[in-house]
Amino acid sequence: MARGFRQKIRQKNTENSGFGDNASGRFINKDGLPNVHKKGVGILNRFSWYHTMLDLSTFQFLSYLVIAYIIVNILFALIYFLIGVEHLTGIDKSNPMNEFIDVFFFSSQTFTTVGYGRIAPVGFTASLVATFEAFLGLLTFAIATGLFYGRFSRPRAYLKFSDIAVIAPFKEGSALMFRLAPYKNNSLTDADVIVSTAIEVIENSVPKSNFYTLKTQLSKINTLALNWTVVHKIDEESPFFGFSEEDFKNTDIEIIVHVRAFDEVFSNTVVQRSSYVSKEIIYGAKFIPMYYPDKENLSTILDLDRINHYQQADLPVLEEQ
Amino acid sequence: MARGFRQKIRQKNTENSGFGDNASGRFINKDGLPNVHKKGVGILNRFSWYHTMLDLSTFQFLSYLVIAYIIVNILFALIYFLIGVEHLTGIDKSNPMNEFIDVFFFSSQTFTTVGYGRIAPVGFTASLVATFEAFLGLLTFAIATGLFYGRFSRPRAYLKFSDIAVIAPFKEGSALMFRLAPYKNNSLTDADVIVSTAIEVIENSVPKSNFYTLKTQLSKINTLALNWTVVHKIDEESPFFGFSEEDFKNTDIEIIVHVRAFDEVFSNTVVQRSSYVSKEIIYGAKFIPMYYPDKENLSTILDLDRINHYQQADLPVLEEQ
Amino acid sequence: MARGFRQKIRQKNTENSGFGDNASGRFINKDGLPNVHKKGVGILNRFSWYHTMLDLSTFQFLSYLVIAYIIVNILFALIYFLIGVEHLTGIDKSNPMNEFIDVFFFSSQTFTTVGYGRIAPVGFTASLVATFEAFLGLLTFAIATGLFYGRFSRPRAYLKFSDIAVIAPFKEGSALMFRLAPYKNNSLTDADVIVSTAIEVIENSVPKSNFYTLKTQLSKINTLALNWTVVHKIDEESPFFGFSEEDFKNTDIEIIVHVRAFDEVFSNTVVQRSSYVSKEIIYGAKFIPMYYPDKENLSTILDLDRINHYQQADLPVLEEQ
Amino acid sequence: MARGFRQKIRQKNTENSGFGDNASGRFINKDGLPNVHKKGVGILNRFSWYHTMLDLSTFQFLSYLVIAYIIVNILFALIYFLIGVEHLTGIDKSNPMNEFIDVFFFSSQTFTTVGYGRIAPVGFTASLVATFEAFLGLLTFAIATGLFYGRFSRPRAYLKFSDIAVIAPFKEGSALMFRLAPYKNNSLTDADVIVSTAIEVIENSVPKSNFYTLKTQLSKINTLALNWTVVHKIDEESPFFGFSEEDFKNTDIEIIVHVRAFDEVFSNTVVQRSSYVSKEIIYGAKFIPMYYPDKENLSTILDLDRINHYQQADLPVLEEQ
Repeated sequence: MARGFRQKIRQKNTENSGFGDNASGRFINKDGLPNVHKKGVGILNRFSWYHTMLDLSTFQFLSYLVIAYIIVNILFALIYFLIGVEHLTGIDKSNPMNEFIDVFFFSSQTFTTVGYGRIAPVGFTASLVATFEAFLGLLTFAIATGLFYGRFSRPRAYLKFSDIAVIAPFKEGSALMFRLAPYKNNSLTDADVIVSTAIEVIENSVPKSNFYTLKTQLSKINTLALNWTVVHKIDEESPFFGFSEEDFKNTDIEIIVHVRAFDEVFSNTVVQRSSYVSKEIIYGAKFIPMYYPDKENLSTILDLDRINHYQQADLPVLEEQ
Repeated sequence: MARGFRQKIRQKNTENSGFGDNASGRFINKDGLPNVHKKGVGILNRFSWYHTMLDLSTFQFLSYLVIAYIIVNILFALIYFLIGVEHLTGIDKSNPMNEFIDVFFFSSQTFTTVGYGRIAPVGFTASLVATFEAFLGLLTFAIATGLFYGRFSRPRAYLKFSDIAVIAPFKEGSALMFRLAPYKNNSLTDADVIVSTAIEVIENSVPKSNFYTLKTQLSKINTLALNWTVVHKIDEESPFFGFSEEDFKNTDIEIIVHVRAFDEVFSNTVVQRSSYVSKEIIYGAKFIPMYYPDKENLSTILDLDRINHYQQADLPVLEEQ
Repeated sequence: MARGFRQKIRQKNTENSGFGDNASGRFINKDGLPNVHKKGVGILNRFSWYHTMLDLSTFQFLSYLVIAYIIVNILFALIYFLIGVEHLTGIDKSNPMNEFIDVFFFSSQTFTTVGYGRIAPVGFTASLVATFEAFLGLLTFAIATGLFYGRFSRPRAYLKFSDIAVIAPFKEGSALMFRLAPYKNNSLTDADVIVSTAIEVIENSVPKSNFYTLKTQLSKINTLALNWTVVHKIDEESPFFGFSEEDFKNTDIEIIVHVRAFDEVFSNTVVQRSSYVSKEIIYGAKFIPMYYPDKENLSTILDLDRINHYQQADLPVLEEQ
Repeated sequence: MARGFRQKIRQKNTENSGFGDNASGRFINKDGLPNVHKKGVGILNRFSWYHTMLDLSTFQFLSYLVIAYIIVNILFALIYFLIGVEHLTGIDKSNPMNEFIDVFFFSSQTFTTVGYGRIAPVGFTASLVATFEAFLGLLTFAIATGLFYGRFSRPRAYLKFSDIAVIAPFKEGSALMFRLAPYKNNSLTDADVIVSTAIEVIENSVPKSNFYTLKTQLSKINTLALNWTVVHKIDEESPFFGFSEEDFKNTDIEIIVHVRAFDEVFSNTVVQRSSYVSKEIIYGAKFIPMYYPDKENLSTILDLDRINHYQQADLPVLEEQ
């Protein structure tokens, strides 16, 4: 792992990355979250269940709701069963199984506040439990309403990043490039990108991660309607200046990307992060354009499936190495 | 279409428009959305259904809700019918049609959780389906609640743009002008405007779109209470310097407007975009004021119907052409 | 009304107020809204009903809900009555009045989805109407839920402004002062204030409103926990330099205040505006402090009822007038 | 209490703290709220019940909901009881106690809109009250839905501050340090910190609080994934320059910390404040690192329980005192 780079990098490393020297492994995972695990404090305090509920996939979220619904009804069915089915009208008392089935469905009819009334509570205890269950049901659906809204109103950038970054020829020299495109029917404006890199260097024979900011040719664009190819020219100010193909392969490099834009539907700033490590950087390649005019020449078509399309491209021979 | 402008424009074109050279057709539609179509990724991934639901008109949105409600009830009615009407109490069994009508309404009474109980499920299978339907009904209304709130709490600028822009006399010279006004009872403050233009030029006999930023006389105003006439003086720094009436007609021009303001009710930044193409620019005209004092001289009246009112106005003869 | 000031004001007037020269009356009402009326476009398009619903008082809002609930039930009761009470079970058919009362309550039981079932629909037409009413009921409560949330989650500054501004002695000279204080249990930080003034001047014997920015001694404070006395020193750069008590009385002056702060509960920027006209400016007065240590000297007490307390204070004699 | 510092502090004190000279006690409580009490205006106007409901603990909030539910049902039960149980079907009339129990549960079945129908209203008065109660029930749950959403969608930083600050050796001199770490599964980026201090000084034998801004070595970090040790170097520009251990003990000092970051789930700026008073500052100590690589060297572990771990550390002898 510790394949530090021994050459001198001219740029001073930045200290405000938020990661320390002895942090290890990838810093930012491909999905943009920091590769950090927390312990201590107690597991209940360490999780924001709202953040957790918002991060679940739709399928997981709905499954959890259904499972919770079944468990709650089984619990209340048990309670009604223990209280005694004689306190409920309309129960099929032919055998205990049928009794349990009827109290289970009475529970669900109460929890959802359907309340057909074919089965209804009589007397204090059963009525009290039913009263509480209906209240709990409504609160549960109040919470579910909030969670649904929280989930789908959560501002997200919906950006697709190219899986790979390339070292491509650029203006007599070379540049690190990757691209990104909005893939949904959202409208992003005022987009900007911050690119930084972590390079493992050997200092006093100890591997250590240094952080550098990578300058981009264009750090801001007005309307993020088509794809955006982010270009970092490898000139004398770049920490990658003088890197050969072997250097890119043998050094632990991580390119950390942070995109920020304004979404016009949410009227909110949305962010998305990603990262590229050494094996995701292709040396001597260039991207193939992914948009073209439509047949009638009246509109532009953006083909999202082409985001990773690239072709080989010879780089100029490095003078200084 | 490709009627490029051959003259030299002094200003350097900007590269951060987010649109490429070989994009085609109008860049920004009149409603402010980019004129780009996407393909690839798969249609389900390409649409944010939340963005789609928020962009529907109120009529469309309500219609979809009603149609979904009817379809869901027909589906559940079919299921209850297949299970057998003998598992429901109170069904009118005079003929299959009446049976189906009764199970359909039983379904709707379950889905909405009204649950009169005149028709009620008996036995495991029918009860199970009803249990699930009531749960589904509540989740559906939870989602609908979120969508309603998302729709009407969506921050919007409610700005009306003049349909046309004019080239009007202005301080010994001429200026490109258009105007905009808030048309609802919302309060906008700290408004600013960014105006840019795409001009098709012929470079090496190939038509190509160049992007320029247009300077405005006043790019920020404190309170957007009355109308705002945005003025771009056509001086030596303007890409339109030296344009004759014919040039405006025969060149593919697009003026792209981006307004940003702070809405005090939403406590949020709202944005609105629009664009003017060649045929929407009137040469030699000026706007007629659209606000005036009320009779008692105690308040100001803003007449929104006058936003497009203009009159002919002679432009000074251009010295340099 | 038009009592313009004839003296020369050194400062250049600002053009980005958003108000025009021939706007009339007070510019900003005491509650912070612009004194502008709109016409044209059509009344339905001119109102954002969401903004309107959010601006209603709690009493008005609840009253509208109750009235709408009664009207909807009367309308549906009429429909059920016209369809015929024989299509509903459990109706008291002793006389038409009792019939109407029963269908009215059946309607409300359907709209709220209580659905006791003592009265229940039988047959196609009544069931269809009931199905639709239950659906409408749920949508209505979905909308009401959104409105309730929109109303109470609406970010507001909850600032109390002093009713009056004073011209007080300040550092060998005088200053215009007014004060404001947060009056609820909200936490405001990073507050800033922008103060401007509209002064009516006579230019070529025509009254005209000029706008000036007023510099304040402190335009930003970190924590808005106590009251904030905003101080505009009347020095040579002030448009009020050389104004006598008579000038303040006889000139149409309006001080426009715009406060912006960050609310930590809403995690949002909140704004509040107010204005002071000539008759609300007291010449030769100073504010009495409105906070003091508590008895144990462990905390500070802010007495909001003292916000308008002031005492007479002699101003230094103006050298230049 | 009034143990003012007599030495000369070179830095000019800032005036925009928002606190006055004669405020007393701690300025910011440990939980970040200002130590100010308000009076006047009237208690109902002085509280934002929404802010109050959002500040309650989950347990308190749920308890209030349950208590309100019980009280409402008792009130409506009394009303139905007064109207007369003969206007309700299905009541157990064996004795007044059973009657009251039945009207109580009828009330809850109405309020939650379960409406089994075993007990149902007959006649105008009881039906009217039930109609109103069901309406009230739905509105209550609409409000509860909004409160639930408001509570869990409230943007919060979830930052844990070290309980103590230390005066630690730093680069040939010393520095004031404290640390903070995100303790939940939230993603914070673009974090910045503002540190200021209130020092009580004796001016003309009157104790008075002066406010100073404390410069930090790093005021902004990109990704707040690990802990952040905020470092204020005590150099000639620091108000603590020349402070001995005794000075720190005997002077009334309060360090006020204000952290601001961008939360990627809420897509919103979140803030958190805290403060350290004299007795929470440990002289001659340094923090022990709280993160380390995991066993496989693939990820970093942040141990939140170590946030207060420190060890003694000798400070360099002060040259100037």
